[in-house]
Amino acid sequence: MLSSMRTQVGIIGAGPAGLLLSHLLHLRGISSVVLERRSRDYVERRVRAGVLEQGTVDTLVESGVGERLLREGLVHDGIELRYGGAGHRVAFEKLVPGRAITVYGQQEVVRDLIAARLAAGGDIRFEVDDVAVHSLEDAPYVTFGGERLDCDFIAGCDGFHGVSRPSVPEGVITVYEREYPFAWLGILARVAPSAEELIYARTGRGFALHSMRSPEISRFYLQVPAGQDLDEWPDERIWAELKARLETVPGFTLATGEIIEKGITPLRSFVAEPMRHGRLFLAGDAAHIVPPTGAKGLNLAVADVRVLTEALTRFYADGSAALLDDYSDICLKRVWRAQHFSWWMTTLLHTFDSDDAYGRRLQTSYLDYVTSSDAAATTLAENYVGMPYEVSP
Amino acid sequence: MLSSMRTQVGIIGAGPAGLLLSHLLHLRGISSVVLERRSRDYVERRVRAGVLEQGTVDTLVESGVGERLLREGLVHDGIELRYGGAGHRVAFEKLVPGRAITVYGQQEVVRDLIAARLAAGGDIRFEVDDVAVHSLEDAPYVTFGGERLDCDFIAGCDGFHGVSRPSVPEGVITVYEREYPFAWLGILARVAPSAEELIYARTGRGFALHSMRSPEISRFYLQVPAGQDLDEWPDERIWAELKARLETVPGFTLATGEIIEKGITPLRSFVAEPMRHGRLFLAGDAAHIVPPTGAKGLNLAVADVRVLTEALTRFYADGSAALLDDYSDICLKRVWRAQHFSWWMTTLLHTFDSDDAYGRRLQTSYLDYVTSSDAAATTLAENYVGMPYEVSP
Repeated sequence: MLSSMRTQVGIIGAGPAGLLLSHLLHLRGISSVVLERRSRDYVERRVRAGVLEQGTVDTLVESGVGERLLREGLVHDGIELRYGGAGHRVAFEKLVPGRAITVYGQQEVVRDLIAARLAAGGDIRFEVDDVAVHSLEDAPYVTFGGERLDCDFIAGCDGFHGVSRPSVPEGVITVYEREYPFAWLGILARVAPSAEELIYARTGRGFALHSMRSPEISRFYLQVPAGQDLDEWPDERIWAELKARLETVPGFTLATGEIIEKGITPLRSFVAEPMRHGRLFLAGDAAHIVPPTGAKGLNLAVADVRVLTEALTRFYADGSAALLDDYSDICLKRVWRAQHFSWWMTTLLHTFDSDDAYGRRLQTSYLDYVTSSDAAATTLAENYVGMPYEVSP
Repeated sequence: MLSSMRTQVGIIGAGPAGLLLSHLLHLRGISSVVLERRSRDYVERRVRAGVLEQGTVDTLVESGVGERLLREGLVHDGIELRYGGAGHRVAFEKLVPGRAITVYGQQEVVRDLIAARLAAGGDIRFEVDDVAVHSLEDAPYVTFGGERLDCDFIAGCDGFHGVSRPSVPEGVITVYEREYPFAWLGILARVAPSAEELIYARTGRGFALHSMRSPEISRFYLQVPAGQDLDEWPDERIWAELKARLETVPGFTLATGEIIEKGITPLRSFVAEPMRHGRLFLAGDAAHIVPPTGAKGLNLAVADVRVLTEALTRFYADGSAALLDDYSDICLKRVWRAQHFSWWMTTLLHTFDSDDAYGRRLQTSYLDYVTSSDAAATTLAENYVGMPYEVSP
């Protein structure tokens, strides 16, 4: 016999999507329980994205969880595109005035949200086993570790590999996806960033990204062939390759330091449509994945959660399911914009083995255009800082 | 024994590039002889491009050959992108104020230029046989039909299949090219256009273009698989397919009429670098080909000729070869911009057999973006009406 409890919204996953949803619902007086397979320590240390759109920052600040973000986050008004021996700044302050990005690690957002939820008496269950969702079409409930959680709705915020999406009956969801022939090797290093802003470098050796987490911690990425093993990348090789790809403009020297984290992430584009089945709503990586080049993954999750919060608030206010019915379509407009932008940034900057000489020249021509036309630069800038939120399907 | 004569610039080809060059040089007091393999009647009737950039119009008008163009050309302040059951206007008057395109057939430009050259006593030899270029590196000369033309410089304006480019020694020129798995079936029809502006239509059946030549003559194109034969396209099939691809928005009916010209053109991207060898200068299609989607071929030829005219004028004025030395690099900046734009328009609007479901959604997402973001629409508009002319390498 399962022990049983009830909440309005059962949330699977304590990543940024699930935690933010729980927090925003709480502010609207809607109860939720968050179920997370991993430990609190694990999710608070899991290194992921680190670039927040203006709208993501606004969402966190306006909902009262932005205090540390405003204090520690690094506001950037531009990024550099580096190729052909020169750096070209994409100046957000000129192209999209009033909008910027903030560099602040995803795990910091997670920490802030967990702290806020717990301070408000929120119910987050870590290290729960055997999570499963049931009866999605009428009276949904979640089972986990011998317990049963009945709820009005389930929010599947459990990422690409979570249980929510696979629980939708066969034939309901259509998947769109693309894989790339390369991956990103990412490191965190204990060294001050070598430049004030992010540097997206395209070279004949492949793409590299210079980023940062704080004034003392740098973040770097290298394009590597898909399927490579971390063992092939001892620290010295990583630094040598980063230098080869980033020290391509006069006067730039890459500072090195202790590597405190490294990992390889495959690049993938993925969309599951619709993002809803019955009373299950998918949000964030559970429904869509983008290659990290455009820094859109976390920001899309926040956008989904904003829409879902509005829709649930409306439902509990007056019983109207109209916004819930529009949830998937509203989210997918932004998702596909981000899918395209992420694909675009990826193809603009990476080296493809399949490229012929014509393709390489096209890529250079496109970069020359993006760095010389205000209109073209604005297409990059407005997507990078985040397009306006969609409010209708 | 060859009969012999002399001019300053020997021009191979009486297409728009060669004729405009001869005309502009004449205005600067520089002599030229134009050699053309075909008859005058043939080149005056050869149906080709029909969309002139603002700068092309300005060049023709300012050099005194724009009188009929200004009278008969149709000035357009926008184009329509049609897909997904709706039309979306790209409004040049809002996005790139003061710049427009003019619809005026390439053969009309050719007629105007031939008339102007002959009226000024210009030397154009039609139907010359066995044209060959010689001694390109020091004292160039051209032979044709038993005659010899000595000159200071040779301008290779004889198109993709001409003799000029193949006369450059092996190893000097690098070729960049891409072929597409489809072609354009184009027709001229004796019927008033069914819309005031050009319509670029993307459908699941393939791309179609609604264009026009005059208030009485319409021009249409259909994407067809590469290698198809005109025999497979009787008139009824052409109209049925045009209707299927263009009558996709409420209230739009395609008017049909007598088809007075039809042909199939393969789509190709091609660049030869450098565009100069010794005293031979390549201009227009002899050096580069773009797919017609962006309407850039004729306009690029005009841009090349402008640069070459300036360079030769400078040389004859003070002996400086500096601009001649920069000719190729200056032209190639614009060429690669147009190469990219033409590839971009082509991939945005055509159906590719190789497209997976993800690719088709990406294409729709990109079209949605171009038709909703001013920045994205401006990237289309500014390229379509023509980027500013390059004046330095």
